[in-house]
Amino acid sequence: MDIAALRTANPDHWNKATAIRALTLDAVAAANSGHSGMPMGMADVATVLYEKHLKFDAANPDWPDRDRFILSAGHGSMLLYSLLHLTGYDDMTLEQVKNFRQWGAITAGHPEYGHAKGIETTTGPLGQGIANSVGFAMAEEMLRARFGRKLVDHYTYVIAGDGCLMEGISQEAIGLAGRHALGRLIVLWDNNNITIDGTVDLADRTDQVKRFRASGWQVLEIDGHDPAAIDAALTEAKKSKRPTMIACKTHIALGHAAQDTSKGHGALTNPEQLAAAKDAYGWPYGPFEVPADVKSAWEEIGKRGASEQAAWAARLAEMSAPRQAEFTRIFDRDVPPKLSARIKALKKQISEEAPKVATRQSSEMVLEVVNPVMQETVGGSADLSGSNNTRSGDMTVFDVDNRKGRYVHWGIREHGMAAAMNGMALHGGIRPYGGTFMCFTDYARPAMRLAALMKIPTVFVMTHDSIGLGEDGPTHQPVEHLAISRATPNTWVFRPCDTVETAEAWELALTSKETPSVMSLTRQGLPTLRREHKTKNMTAQGAYVLADAIGKREAILLATGSEVEIAMAARDLLQKDGIGTRVVSMPCWELFEDQDEAYRKRVLPGGPVRVAVEAAIRFGWDRWLYGERGRRDKGGFIGMHDFGASAPAPTLYKEFGITAEDVAAKVKSLL
Amino acid sequence: MDIAALRTANPDHWNKATAIRALTLDAVAAANSGHSGMPMGMADVATVLYEKHLKFDAANPDWPDRDRFILSAGHGSMLLYSLLHLTGYDDMTLEQVKNFRQWGAITAGHPEYGHAKGIETTTGPLGQGIANSVGFAMAEEMLRARFGRKLVDHYTYVIAGDGCLMEGISQEAIGLAGRHALGRLIVLWDNNNITIDGTVDLADRTDQVKRFRASGWQVLEIDGHDPAAIDAALTEAKKSKRPTMIACKTHIALGHAAQDTSKGHGALTNPEQLAAAKDAYGWPYGPFEVPADVKSAWEEIGKRGASEQAAWAARLAEMSAPRQAEFTRIFDRDVPPKLSARIKALKKQISEEAPKVATRQSSEMVLEVVNPVMQETVGGSADLSGSNNTRSGDMTVFDVDNRKGRYVHWGIREHGMAAAMNGMALHGGIRPYGGTFMCFTDYARPAMRLAALMKIPTVFVMTHDSIGLGEDGPTHQPVEHLAISRATPNTWVFRPCDTVETAEAWELALTSKETPSVMSLTRQGLPTLRREHKTKNMTAQGAYVLADAIGKREAILLATGSEVEIAMAARDLLQKDGIGTRVVSMPCWELFEDQDEAYRKRVLPGGPVRVAVEAAIRFGWDRWLYGERGRRDKGGFIGMHDFGASAPAPTLYKEFGITAEDVAAKVKSLL
Repeated sequence: MDIAALRTANPDHWNKATAIRALTLDAVAAANSGHSGMPMGMADVATVLYEKHLKFDAANPDWPDRDRFILSAGHGSMLLYSLLHLTGYDDMTLEQVKNFRQWGAITAGHPEYGHAKGIETTTGPLGQGIANSVGFAMAEEMLRARFGRKLVDHYTYVIAGDGCLMEGISQEAIGLAGRHALGRLIVLWDNNNITIDGTVDLADRTDQVKRFRASGWQVLEIDGHDPAAIDAALTEAKKSKRPTMIACKTHIALGHAAQDTSKGHGALTNPEQLAAAKDAYGWPYGPFEVPADVKSAWEEIGKRGASEQAAWAARLAEMSAPRQAEFTRIFDRDVPPKLSARIKALKKQISEEAPKVATRQSSEMVLEVVNPVMQETVGGSADLSGSNNTRSGDMTVFDVDNRKGRYVHWGIREHGMAAAMNGMALHGGIRPYGGTFMCFTDYARPAMRLAALMKIPTVFVMTHDSIGLGEDGPTHQPVEHLAISRATPNTWVFRPCDTVETAEAWELALTSKETPSVMSLTRQGLPTLRREHKTKNMTAQGAYVLADAIGKREAILLATGSEVEIAMAARDLLQKDGIGTRVVSMPCWELFEDQDEAYRKRVLPGGPVRVAVEAAIRFGWDRWLYGERGRRDKGGFIGMHDFGASAPAPTLYKEFGITAEDVAAKVKSLL
Repeated sequence: MDIAALRTANPDHWNKATAIRALTLDAVAAANSGHSGMPMGMADVATVLYEKHLKFDAANPDWPDRDRFILSAGHGSMLLYSLLHLTGYDDMTLEQVKNFRQWGAITAGHPEYGHAKGIETTTGPLGQGIANSVGFAMAEEMLRARFGRKLVDHYTYVIAGDGCLMEGISQEAIGLAGRHALGRLIVLWDNNNITIDGTVDLADRTDQVKRFRASGWQVLEIDGHDPAAIDAALTEAKKSKRPTMIACKTHIALGHAAQDTSKGHGALTNPEQLAAAKDAYGWPYGPFEVPADVKSAWEEIGKRGASEQAAWAARLAEMSAPRQAEFTRIFDRDVPPKLSARIKALKKQISEEAPKVATRQSSEMVLEVVNPVMQETVGGSADLSGSNNTRSGDMTVFDVDNRKGRYVHWGIREHGMAAAMNGMALHGGIRPYGGTFMCFTDYARPAMRLAALMKIPTVFVMTHDSIGLGEDGPTHQPVEHLAISRATPNTWVFRPCDTVETAEAWELALTSKETPSVMSLTRQGLPTLRREHKTKNMTAQGAYVLADAIGKREAILLATGSEVEIAMAARDLLQKDGIGTRVVSMPCWELFEDQDEAYRKRVLPGGPVRVAVEAAIRFGWDRWLYGERGRRDKGGFIGMHDFGASAPAPTLYKEFGITAEDVAAKVKSLL
């Protein structure tokens, strides 16, 4: 690569881009870790994007109508931190850049949503950003359809690397974006032909241009170091009614001794080579030094969108008061005031009517009540709409000619769905929920973890949540998936026992601002156990006494979801034998853990024998089986000990020994 | 579709294919659940495949040189069960077919590996089969290169549906197969344009032909109901040096009222419609009735490969005794006799030299000893070879011109790698292991679960297993992943504390015949704690006393991996204060659970305070914190309580309170 030619061709551009390269080299050297090559290779593309196309205002990072910039290749975090610092985001000080990857800094190894302004999503696990971006772009289409171009009119830009495109999730994203003709989505592929193990063709020889075109994308191919070509491609991309992929041929670690090599992917810290690179750049400045004229040119870019932002704010202010309030409310993630009353009314009705339905149907009943009063919800399913019961009657299907549609047919793409839902939640103005079978939590898992890490309230509707799904067999029967979700920090796992608890769980999930929820719902019918109406949301406490012991309290049965019915029947058996038995329903362990110790002890006092029943493995239950001074030999578990089997559900419960009789026998054996 | 024309065009073929359709309709009707449409749509393709191409011998289902048939669209299990029954696999009786999806039957809802002969892999979770098939085809190439065409010379056939192709993992598989020019891999795409939610274009408009071609596949397009076209395409495919995808245009639920509809995907049980379909087929037989001439024609097909099998057996018998023994040994999953001595020698050497290395390096040291004496191992990494330390010096890279290569650059495809490794293990003759970062267990998870469910000994090398990875930050720091793997039935999770335990863990993983292993290995250096050489594999017991209390035993510290060093240091602090402290290393919970109660009680006697230390969340640890009669208030935990952070590892351990001082203080607070 002829660096000298690049320098002289367009010195203004060169200096701006080189500020990114130099900051990257210095920050990685200071941290003695990180990824230098990607920011160095993509600095030109990013510079043109920020300078000429990206609609943003560094002083208003949360402006709802800004363009979104997503760094899917998150290891190149110094590219983003450099851009944020140079354009003048007030939290991204030079001090923060100097503390790259250090304790307490907002400049983590990979961009962490919530750490710094201007980070739109957490990336690093490859492919997530490009899949998030589908949700961002869908959210923009939906909100533009709802509120009009005066309030919503922006693009989603993504920088993706070879790693992003090799991960399977990228195909799910590409397929979705192509299907839905997301013309406002523009992916800049850092086509540098280098991965950690070597050149890309060591592992892949896919023609990415043909691959994207096969899914209906526009593809443009450019020299990623030619500012005019980058500008022209972006201009062209913005006109397209289809999503655009711009293949940017770049040199990783441009101008460094490690250019175009795997070594260039990582931390370039050799002082001599660093100096040589800066020398080649014509950058005679010290570490972290950006000359005033370059910094000031960048700051002008950071202010470029200020007038547009002000005009937008004025347009919002011109809207009717209810429209303004609605727009503000949904971006604040506030629920509508009506919600609580509607949920309470449903609970009352259910307690009276006491239907026997599967909790996936209960969930649909709740959504029928919620969706009409919460226009920001967007439902969907990974090709199991009729099984997940995720579509309420008022929801039309999102499509190219129906951007107001609030129901998404995600296809057989659990992972892409979960990541795109995260994108919607991150965009703001949308409350996404989507369904699949609980067992396929496995497929969605990387995105579910990121929802928890990012603190966004995505709702994962996981039906067919145990052996209760029956004949489909062990491949489809979750046994460890409750444990997996419960083990994940900042995740509410709701396993309601009937329609009333399901309504309460939904209320909590929809009211949550910072915690994603997993709704663990049955395929099979369950009776209404909450027959006495309570306006209080009992599920908010995580666990509570559903039925107390009659007479001396000798046993406590702990259960969730479909097994609460079994615990109640076991209680009948035990009480018949004069054994006073309490049943505690535990729809959400995490919320129970959050209660004060006094409450937890009231629900689970020491002394009585405790037996838990759940049609899943025991892993994690020991937490609740012994009181603070309780004894291990007074706790028991009825549930699964291995994978399931293929047979009708009642047969499976009997054969695996998860019945009221088994629970009662276990209690007696411990007394 | 003109059924009459199909019937008359080729009645012999029609009757054979219709036997599959009729058995499917009858079995699904009897079970009142299942998926009728796919077997009905793909019966013609499967019939031609079995009749004219698939090399198999129903009487020798384990013949190592058989062609493999993989039903990636596993919900169409009745297609496979019909084929196995009709061709005369002795366990697939008509009784089993009649008991489709019932307790105790080998005819589970989805094909379960190990339940019936002729099921090559467990499918149902979509996309897994097609990704397995990459491993099957690679294994064939590797073994053909090693043993020659006389012993290894077969194809891998896959039936995949639209769901398989929408799942992201399919792209990983397609990319790998294209890259490695796996010409023996032939995918038959059931192109019926129907998914559960509706037509495919509801969710996807990808041109699959162009997509496969973009990754270097040969693609053929045929009418999936034309036996001559199917035959010709298979003949053509077998000649290709590149993998072939045959797009078979089919009608789901052919000939039924639900043909070409979503309803046709599911269980077609309406008796009148069933009768009408059979009538259209010209199939006047009762439920489960196959006329003798058709059954006998199918049985001939089942015997078609007998002579070829006999010739193959004769060729094997002609081989030199050591060659025969080696071939048999690797297909029996036996380890070479040398292995144990080599491992013991390494342990002895390590105990003497006491190096301070990361356990990922320890793992490499073990592989340097193992791989030369175990030629059936195949290593690899998802583009983290240098970090996972998975390549030993003797391993060359598998490539088109080096089929003897035993190291695979999987690319940034954790999921595809895991599934393909499962395929290799299922093929037989190969012991696959592959690496990525522990955090990306998330991506590989669906395939890891299937390894456990299928009882195959795939080894997942998961390095960078805690906050100890440092600066990459929370996206890359596992905190819940030990719990996730431990929660999975039939999975050994090894978290060795030093090189000696790492050697023991590898010995167990490689000796395993039915249990996959997760190797949880550190990025950071650890001292050798096992300084006294023991020939016995201590890790085989799951947990053991590493250092006992001096004086009265007041505390027991439980730890794994990198935290055993911390526990040992805490013991020093406590003993200094006169508090007798035992340290128990717990490299494998599952194996400890398998020990008898007497051993477990010897290691973890009641009485002393117990404190566990692990740089991960507590979830699951309560199982070990209280003795059978121990008290909850005498157990404590030092570890993570939330996601990690980006900073150097020593800072993180200190800031998150995972130090010897913290452990000692916790013990004192409980005493």
